[in-house]
Amino acid sequence: MRIIRSQTKMSALSDGLKKKGMSIGLVPTMGYLHEGHLSLIRKARKENDSVVVSIFVNPAQFGPKEDLRKYPRDLGRDSDLCRKIGTDIIFYPTIKSMYPDMYVTYVDVEDITRLLCGKSRPGHFRGVATVVAKLFNIIRPDTAYFGQKDFQQAQVIKKMVKDLNMNVKVSVLATVREKDGLAMSSRNKYLKGVDRQDASVLYGALMNARALIKEGERDPGKVIKAIITLISKKASAKIDYVEIVDPETLQRVEKIRNRVLIALAVFINKTRLIDNLLIRI
Amino acid sequence: MRIIRSQTKMSALSDGLKKKGMSIGLVPTMGYLHEGHLSLIRKARKENDSVVVSIFVNPAQFGPKEDLRKYPRDLGRDSDLCRKIGTDIIFYPTIKSMYPDMYVTYVDVEDITRLLCGKSRPGHFRGVATVVAKLFNIIRPDTAYFGQKDFQQAQVIKKMVKDLNMNVKVSVLATVREKDGLAMSSRNKYLKGVDRQDASVLYGALMNARALIKEGERDPGKVIKAIITLISKKASAKIDYVEIVDPETLQRVEKIRNRVLIALAVFINKTRLIDNLLIRI
Repeated sequence: MRIIRSQTKMSALSDGLKKKGMSIGLVPTMGYLHEGHLSLIRKARKENDSVVVSIFVNPAQFGPKEDLRKYPRDLGRDSDLCRKIGTDIIFYPTIKSMYPDMYVTYVDVEDITRLLCGKSRPGHFRGVATVVAKLFNIIRPDTAYFGQKDFQQAQVIKKMVKDLNMNVKVSVLATVREKDGLAMSSRNKYLKGVDRQDASVLYGALMNARALIKEGERDPGKVIKAIITLISKKASAKIDYVEIVDPETLQRVEKIRNRVLIALAVFINKTRLIDNLLIRI
Repeated sequence: MRIIRSQTKMSALSDGLKKKGMSIGLVPTMGYLHEGHLSLIRKARKENDSVVVSIFVNPAQFGPKEDLRKYPRDLGRDSDLCRKIGTDIIFYPTIKSMYPDMYVTYVDVEDITRLLCGKSRPGHFRGVATVVAKLFNIIRPDTAYFGQKDFQQAQVIKKMVKDLNMNVKVSVLATVREKDGLAMSSRNKYLKGVDRQDASVLYGALMNARALIKEGERDPGKVIKAIITLISKKASAKIDYVEIVDPETLQRVEKIRNRVLIALAVFINKTRLIDNLLIRI
């Protein structure tokens, strides 16, 4: 396994692989890898001749008051995990090389980036789309792997790839969860003691919502209310949003039918967690 | 020579060429080709195994009150010219295929797009950057050719390519002019009678400015004033802007030194013309 910092070297390696007819699977991450990332890497390993994991805590997707500085980092641990699981290359660029002085170009995916997390994190998805476009151009993967936990992010990437005619397949894999249902996230590291216990209420509330819908509830307002009621029982919890939306447009639905996405963002004390559930009726 | 309308087919052809190790030169145009375009195609022919000319009047780069509908089009003539000069493929996509329903993704190059033509044509360079990003992703050229007449456009493309790590070389070739100095442009077709004669004042004023600078004038204000005075003698002329800027940042210079760009946009009656001159001291 190689750790590559230079964009030029990374592109040259990719070119070499392509010329040999080898396929490249990319798992873009911000590092501090967990079982969710590892499931993506395993899938990439299965489906490609070569696996690249990018590790880059992307400043462009953090708001000015967000946790860019304290976002957890541990390259040693990450590279051990990547090596064990069969990664060929870790691409680990510097901030200066990704956003040099005079950097001015951004990719804007409109509409769906204004909803859900886009409301509370303006500019977030612009930063995500931009860095992913850059990574795609540097690494030129055949397939890129994302987790369903970041459902909206995956939709934004898919839209960008389609609209800008990028030659990359986007593969979205199921959310990996802790035993109590908490969706894996590098930010779970922030959760200590009771907060960590409280955090499982997100999944609990989603499961309860699913049960309500299975029992026949079709009014999104009522299901949302049940979710809010459950989550609000935890003193540490502050709800950012709970919505039931169309999984393609991310627009709120008036009635639950066909396929819907229940999406939520909740602060457990200062830690913002997201989760979602795709429901087919 | 083939005329290709489908993006999928175009990408497949490019893939085939790449796999054979053949280089691709792209000349992106809005059609109604003139000697300026042809000089780009000739250069592409000289430098590449395969030459693609794209013809697409890109709605995203026209403002709501601009000349999208009446922009001149003549595919028959264009394809004759392309064939004669040794084009391999004309890529001629439909608007629907380039901007299908629900299209939402745009490439924003900030800063330099707010200056010069960006001031009078808000959104123009966003449309340009977006369509060129799309064309690069569909056609995957090794080199793309642009004319210096659209100096700011070329700078925007270069910036986008660098910032987004696109794997394309951008080549900018000298402006081709009519006998009286008028820069070649598809929009020159709009100029009739006296307007056509008056239009040569742009080049005349640029030449006069160059002479002033050669004689030692270093004050951009005075040079600009001389240009404005000359152009204003024509009753048909209405100046949009005349500026002397740094060719990299496109910011106004306070003193003329090293390399500067004199850039101007002038309406001759209803036809907006642009021209520029790069000056080294």
